[in-house]
Amino acid sequence: VELADRLQQGDVRALSRACRVVDDRLPGHRELLSRVHARSRRGWVLGITGGAGVGKSTLTDGLVARLRQQGERVGVVAVDPSSPFHGGALLGDRIRLQRHFLDTEVFIRSLATRGAHGGLSRSAGDVVSLLRAWGAGVTLIETVGVGQDELDVCSLAHTTVVVVAPGLGDSIQAMKAGLVETADLFVVNKADREGADRAVADLEAAIDLRGGGERPLVLSTVATSGQGLGELETALLRHRDWLAGAEGQSRCREREHAALSRFIAAEAASTLVERHGAEVSALAQRVQDGALDPYAAAEELTRRLDGSASRDSG
Amino acid sequence: VELADRLQQGDVRALSRACRVVDDRLPGHRELLSRVHARSRRGWVLGITGGAGVGKSTLTDGLVARLRQQGERVGVVAVDPSSPFHGGALLGDRIRLQRHFLDTEVFIRSLATRGAHGGLSRSAGDVVSLLRAWGAGVTLIETVGVGQDELDVCSLAHTTVVVVAPGLGDSIQAMKAGLVETADLFVVNKADREGADRAVADLEAAIDLRGGGERPLVLSTVATSGQGLGELETALLRHRDWLAGAEGQSRCREREHAALSRFIAAEAASTLVERHGAEVSALAQRVQDGALDPYAAAEELTRRLDGSASRDSG
Repeated sequence: VELADRLQQGDVRALSRACRVVDDRLPGHRELLSRVHARSRRGWVLGITGGAGVGKSTLTDGLVARLRQQGERVGVVAVDPSSPFHGGALLGDRIRLQRHFLDTEVFIRSLATRGAHGGLSRSAGDVVSLLRAWGAGVTLIETVGVGQDELDVCSLAHTTVVVVAPGLGDSIQAMKAGLVETADLFVVNKADREGADRAVADLEAAIDLRGGGERPLVLSTVATSGQGLGELETALLRHRDWLAGAEGQSRCREREHAALSRFIAAEAASTLVERHGAEVSALAQRVQDGALDPYAAAEELTRRLDGSASRDSG
Repeated sequence: VELADRLQQGDVRALSRACRVVDDRLPGHRELLSRVHARSRRGWVLGITGGAGVGKSTLTDGLVARLRQQGERVGVVAVDPSSPFHGGALLGDRIRLQRHFLDTEVFIRSLATRGAHGGLSRSAGDVVSLLRAWGAGVTLIETVGVGQDELDVCSLAHTTVVVVAPGLGDSIQAMKAGLVETADLFVVNKADREGADRAVADLEAAIDLRGGGERPLVLSTVATSGQGLGELETALLRHRDWLAGAEGQSRCREREHAALSRFIAAEAASTLVERHGAEVSALAQRVQDGALDPYAAAEELTRRLDGSASRDSG
């Protein structure tokens, strides 16, 4: 449609409109996404993940400013409910971020954590597609790295930065949450605080344990003052170069394949379950009546849904 | 089987074995869960949720100690990756919790955040069933309240306590994450810290906004010193009494129905997708080749999976 064309010409108002169409599932959202899909395969996607309060937003803000200096068109998708990009912010943060809101070459979209399983990663995936179709050379995804939905959002990124801050449990949490496996780069932010050396050492030890593959760097930053941001940018751009090579391309294809498989499966499963809502509810009732256990109910539903057996049980 | 019988006689070693059978999906796990299901409908389930570092574990520890003084058999399921119940802890915490590990009337199980969507809430649900069948009068579920999986874990609880601590963004985060809707009771822990009054006021304001239904209390505690724990226990037991009444019973049935429906649907969907893994992968490949967009691929899979259309597209 016309909207898709204007979006692909880099029209920021068309992008804004497209995000609303997709978010609210307005008429034509499905066609819009199909149309932009082919155009939405360029552009680098950078994930910034870490717990609440580690300074992800300040770091993202600093990176946006630097990337803009290089002339990149930049997209930001914030899926952290406590992010200042999200409105849940101190006034000072909001004022600082304002400069990007006034820049027509930067587009910021925040997503609420809501809805069913996979809803978050689907929404984020759609917005990333729109941003890439719009022509964002870099799209930053800011996300809290807890929960499976969040990890799925991370899998949208070509390069993943895991951010921790010195102090209790943060790096331990990163290890437990499986983030060590997904990180291409670690940042210890708030590195002027006590415990920063310890946090670096903890991460290095965790990386030793993970073994195999490219060893991720551990960088230290103080995002509020800009300290270490230059090194971070350099390391990130080096990773982008690596992605353009044979090994990087192959990894991108594999990850994309896995993410697409998950998306296709989850989407089909949720449509099926929606269609058969009345049966699901009746089975739940039978479990509550004590006639079935929950696993037997799930097996019964599987039998009914699966084409191969559908003629027997109707 | 014999294991189910021994479990239902309150044998703590049988419980421990049963948890391993279920966790590792050893032979017979399905039968075990079916057998305990009927017996696992008694016992109160109490959810303790909140961000990392708010002191959930210390609060849980204090509540366990108090419930034990009342002679209750207590189960604890910790699904917070940074919880001291989980091993990711300071030595002091671990020593403090040790007393419960030595008490055969307390059983503590920690679950890693891992696996696919819904995997966490399924594992947690299974463990809660085993604990209730074992005869736990109270089962506490400790969980970080971020992400859909976590919210699903909350829905296993009859009574949900949302814990925040004074300071940046915590109560804002609780509001954004939809926790205000699910909370039966709020606790501002670390109430001896600066900003505690503000946190209480923020929560009260959020509760005003939510409107409708029973108005949840906001209590203040200092879990490390035990301050406020008596009031918390009293409020919780009052909620348990309410649950036993007509209104409470009706809410329990509704929530159980919703949770069972989600479980049955998710379980059936994941089985279907597993069975059709090769088709999913082939569709993902066609998207990567540019022959399909992801939504069209999902629709194609839905058509193939759904019984009503299975004969056309085989």
